[in-house]
Amino acid sequence: MTDAAPRRRNRGGGGAARRAERTSVKFETARYIERNIPNFEVLNEEALQIIEANAETVLEEIGVNFVDNPSALDLWRNAGADVQGERVRIPRGLARKLCETAPSEFTQHARNPDRNVVIGGRNLVLAPIYGPPFVRDANGGRRYATLEDFQKFVKLGYMSKWLHHSGGTVCEPTDVPVNKRHLDMLMAHMELSDKPFMGSVTEPSRAQDSVDMCSVLFGADFVQNNTVMTSLININSPLTFDDVMMGSLEVYARNNQACIISPFIVGGAMAPVSVAGTLTQVLAEVLAGVAYSQLVRAGAPVIFGAFVSSIDMNSGAPTFGTPEASLVTYGAGQLARRLNLPFRSAGSFCGSKLPDAQAAYESANSLNMGLMSGVNFMLHSCGWLEGGLVADFEKFVMDADQLGALHGLAKGIVADETGQAMDAIREVGPGGHYLGCAHTQANFKTAFWKSDLLDYKPFETWEEEGARDTYKLATSRVENLLATYKQPEMDPATREALLAFVAEKKASMPDAFM
Amino acid sequence: MTDAAPRRRNRGGGGAARRAERTSVKFETARYIERNIPNFEVLNEEALQIIEANAETVLEEIGVNFVDNPSALDLWRNAGADVQGERVRIPRGLARKLCETAPSEFTQHARNPDRNVVIGGRNLVLAPIYGPPFVRDANGGRRYATLEDFQKFVKLGYMSKWLHHSGGTVCEPTDVPVNKRHLDMLMAHMELSDKPFMGSVTEPSRAQDSVDMCSVLFGADFVQNNTVMTSLININSPLTFDDVMMGSLEVYARNNQACIISPFIVGGAMAPVSVAGTLTQVLAEVLAGVAYSQLVRAGAPVIFGAFVSSIDMNSGAPTFGTPEASLVTYGAGQLARRLNLPFRSAGSFCGSKLPDAQAAYESANSLNMGLMSGVNFMLHSCGWLEGGLVADFEKFVMDADQLGALHGLAKGIVADETGQAMDAIREVGPGGHYLGCAHTQANFKTAFWKSDLLDYKPFETWEEEGARDTYKLATSRVENLLATYKQPEMDPATREALLAFVAEKKASMPDAFM
Repeated sequence: MTDAAPRRRNRGGGGAARRAERTSVKFETARYIERNIPNFEVLNEEALQIIEANAETVLEEIGVNFVDNPSALDLWRNAGADVQGERVRIPRGLARKLCETAPSEFTQHARNPDRNVVIGGRNLVLAPIYGPPFVRDANGGRRYATLEDFQKFVKLGYMSKWLHHSGGTVCEPTDVPVNKRHLDMLMAHMELSDKPFMGSVTEPSRAQDSVDMCSVLFGADFVQNNTVMTSLININSPLTFDDVMMGSLEVYARNNQACIISPFIVGGAMAPVSVAGTLTQVLAEVLAGVAYSQLVRAGAPVIFGAFVSSIDMNSGAPTFGTPEASLVTYGAGQLARRLNLPFRSAGSFCGSKLPDAQAAYESANSLNMGLMSGVNFMLHSCGWLEGGLVADFEKFVMDADQLGALHGLAKGIVADETGQAMDAIREVGPGGHYLGCAHTQANFKTAFWKSDLLDYKPFETWEEEGARDTYKLATSRVENLLATYKQPEMDPATREALLAFVAEKKASMPDAFM
Repeated sequence: MTDAAPRRRNRGGGGAARRAERTSVKFETARYIERNIPNFEVLNEEALQIIEANAETVLEEIGVNFVDNPSALDLWRNAGADVQGERVRIPRGLARKLCETAPSEFTQHARNPDRNVVIGGRNLVLAPIYGPPFVRDANGGRRYATLEDFQKFVKLGYMSKWLHHSGGTVCEPTDVPVNKRHLDMLMAHMELSDKPFMGSVTEPSRAQDSVDMCSVLFGADFVQNNTVMTSLININSPLTFDDVMMGSLEVYARNNQACIISPFIVGGAMAPVSVAGTLTQVLAEVLAGVAYSQLVRAGAPVIFGAFVSSIDMNSGAPTFGTPEASLVTYGAGQLARRLNLPFRSAGSFCGSKLPDAQAAYESANSLNMGLMSGVNFMLHSCGWLEGGLVADFEKFVMDADQLGALHGLAKGIVADETGQAMDAIREVGPGGHYLGCAHTQANFKTAFWKSDLLDYKPFETWEEEGARDTYKLATSRVENLLATYKQPEMDPATREALLAFVAEKKASMPDAFM
C-alpha cells in the first residue's frame, strides 16, 4: 500500500460512507393493505351459479389444450380426464376438486423479513408494471428499455412507500441477450431492493435458475419450505396452455414457489364480447390451470389471475380502464373467493401514449376497481403506459403516489370514540371551526392521506413556482428519488455468491437474441 | 317586397335553413342511469346506529342555528323544538319524523319531456359544475367568466350525450350585474338547452324570479303541480342555516320545487378530522334542513346532500378525490337511503390548476365513488378545476366523456343466453379467436363503451397525427362541438314572453355588483 492513489480513494470512500450514513434516507414501506372495507359483489347468487355451471360445461364438453406437453397429458389422464390428442376434457367437478389443495393464502418471504407479504384473505399486495419492451421519460422520450432502465425502476420501486413488492420484468432489458437477461434482472431485484420479487417464466430452465439464485440468497432448505417468488404464468386464451409457460409452472410448483395463473384476455378477441361469457371462459381456464398445478404438486401456492382488456372494434387496439373490464374483474373476484384462492387483477392500465389525463382517468378507474373487487395481488400497479408496451418513469411515481389513496380507502370508517368525535362537535358548536380544537390537534397528522407529488397550492403560488403540471412534478420526483437512492445492505459473501452464479451461468451458453 | 336585398337575404336564409336541416346534428342524450349494480355499503349496522344516535344527540344537546329568520324559529317552536335565541334544539326523533313526508323520489320535468329525470331510487342524474367565478381554456387561459362563457357551457352540456341535466350556475357571468345575472342564466338554460335545470338561490327574490320564469316556460299550473327545478341550498357547516339560503329554500318548497340540502364540508375546518365524526355532523345538518323544508311544506321534494372535501393541513387548501372524502360519501349514501331520501354527492372534483393527470386521477376517484355510493344527483359531474374556482372547457368534455364509462359500469352483468355466450365459446374453441364469430358479429356494436375523445390508436399513427395529449384532443372537441351546435326549437311566443319578463325585471332595479 505505497501507492498514494488507493489510499486517497480509501480515505475518500470512508468519508463518503460516513457522509452517506449521516444523510441516509430511511425508505419507509407501508405494510401490505389489510382491507377494513367490504368487497364489491356485482354478481348475485343466481348469476354466479350460471357462470360456474357453464365453466364446468366448457371443461367437460370443449376442454382445453395442453400443447407439446406429453407429461401433462399423462397427469390429466391419470387424474380421470378424457385426453384425445392434446385436448383435455375434464369431467364436471374434477378441476374444482383438485383446486381444493391450493392454499387460500400464503406468505411470500423477502430477504428483509419486514417486507414479507401475505397474499390472500383480505390483503392487497401492490407490485409494479411487468413486461414492456420500451421505456419513456420526459427527457429521453420513448426508447427500447435497457438494463440501466431496469435497475432504475427497481430503485424507484424500493423507494416507493406504497409498493410492497419489487415485481419481475419491470421492463425488458433489451441490451442483454434474451437467454441471460433473467439473471441480471434477478440480481437487480435481490441487490438493489429488499422487497419480494418474481421469477423468470420465459423458459423452464430460467425458472430453475430463479429457484437456484433464490437458494443462494435465502438458503436451499429455506426455499424448499417457504415461498420466496410469485411468478406470472399466462394462459394463451382461449383455453390453451403452452409448454413454455406450463414448464415454468412445473418448476415453480415442484419447488413450492407461487404462480399467478392468469388468462390473458382482450375481450372480443381472446374471449366473447360479453362480460358473463368472458367470466365463464376465465373461470374454466383458471380451474384447469390451478388444477394442473395441484397435479404437479398438491399444495403448491397459486393465485387466480385475470388480466382483462377489451378491444376497440374500430382499430383493433386493446383498451383499458373501461367499464366492461371492471365488470369482469368484479365478477372474477367473486369467483376466486368462492374457490378460496388469492386473486390477481387490475393495475395502472391505460391505452394512452403519454402520462396525461387519459392515462390518469383510465388508471384511476382500474386502481379503484382493483381495491373494491378484492384483488390480493395487483401486478402493474404503477408505471403502465401505452397498453403495456411502455414502462414510463413519470407515470411510475404518479401511480405509486395514488396507491397511497388506496391504503387510505382500505382503512374504512373507524367508529370508536375518537372516530365519533362528539367532543369536537360539542367544543366547536354552530358557526365555529375545527382548525384549532383539541380533537383536530390530536388527530390531524394521521387523519388524511397526503400526496407526495400532487399540487395543492393556491393558484398564485403555483404560478410563481412555474405553473408545473403533474408530468413536470413527476419528472422532478423521479430525479430526486434516484439522486437519494441508497442500496439496502447485503451480506458481502451472499452478494459474491450471487455474482459468481450469474457469471458462471452466462459463461455456460452463447448469447441469444430471439 | 320590391327591394332585392331582403329577397336575396330571404332566399339565402331559406337555403341556409334547408342546408342546416340536411346537415343538422341530432344530439343524442342518454337516459339517466338506472343502476343494475349494488351500492357499496362501507358501514356495518352497528356503525350506522352509532352515527344515527350521535346525530340525534347533536340535534338535541347542541342544536342548530337558524340565523336572522324569526319565522323559521316560530315553525320550529310550534313543531316542538326548544328555541333559545337563534339556537334550535330538536328533541330526539323529531327531525327524522318530520323527514318522513319528503318523497323518496321525484320527477324533474324538462321542457322536452324526453329529458325528464327521475331523481331517487337506483337512478343517477348527472349535472355539470356549479359556481366558479373563473373559466379556463387552452387558448384563453384563466380569466373571469362572462355570460358568453356561460352560454357556451350550456351549449356543451346540451350536446353532451352522458349529461342529463343542464345544471345551474355553470360559471358566474361576472360581466352581468349580480342582481340580474340569474335572469340571463335561466334564459340561457331555457333557450339554449332542453334539459332540466336549476334555479337561483342567491336571494329569495331571485328564487321567486326563477319560479316566475318557469311559470312562463311551463305554465303556472304545471309548475305548482310538478317539479321543474332542483336548486342547491348549502348549509353553513357546522350547524348553521343562514337566512338567504333558507329564504330561497322557503320559496322553492312553497312552490313544490326541489332543493338539494347540502352541508358544505371541508373536513378539518367545517367538520371533525374523522370520517365518523363528519358523518355525524352531516346527518344532523341534513336532518335539520330536510325537517325544516317539510315544516315549510310537507311533501316538498328534497335531496340529502353531502359536499365533501378535506383540508391540506400544510397549506389550508381544500383537497379532492381523497380517500377520506370517498369514505364520507359512501357512508352518507347509506344514511340517506335509511332516510328514504335521494342522495347528492361526488363530482369531477380536483385541486389541480390544469386539466392534467392530477385532475384526472382525482376526478376519476370521485366519479367512480359517486356511482358506487348510490348518488342519485351528481352536481359538478364535469368541468370542475382548481377546487371549484374554475370551470374548464377542456375538462368539461374530458369529464363528460368519462361519464359514459359510468353508464357502462352501471349496466352490471347480464347473464341471459346472449350474455352467457356459450355458443361463441363452443364455436371458437381452444386456440381460436372471437373476432369473426357469430356472437361477436351480432353483439360487438353495443358490447363495449367507447370514448368519443380518448386516443386508442397505435403509437405510429398517433405520432403521425401530431402526438396530441388529452388536453389537445379536448381543445379540438370543444371547438367542434361549439361549431356544430344547433339550438333546440322553442315556441316563439314563449321565447318572447321570457325575454319580456327578463327585460322588465332588469329595468325594475338598478345594477348591483356586490
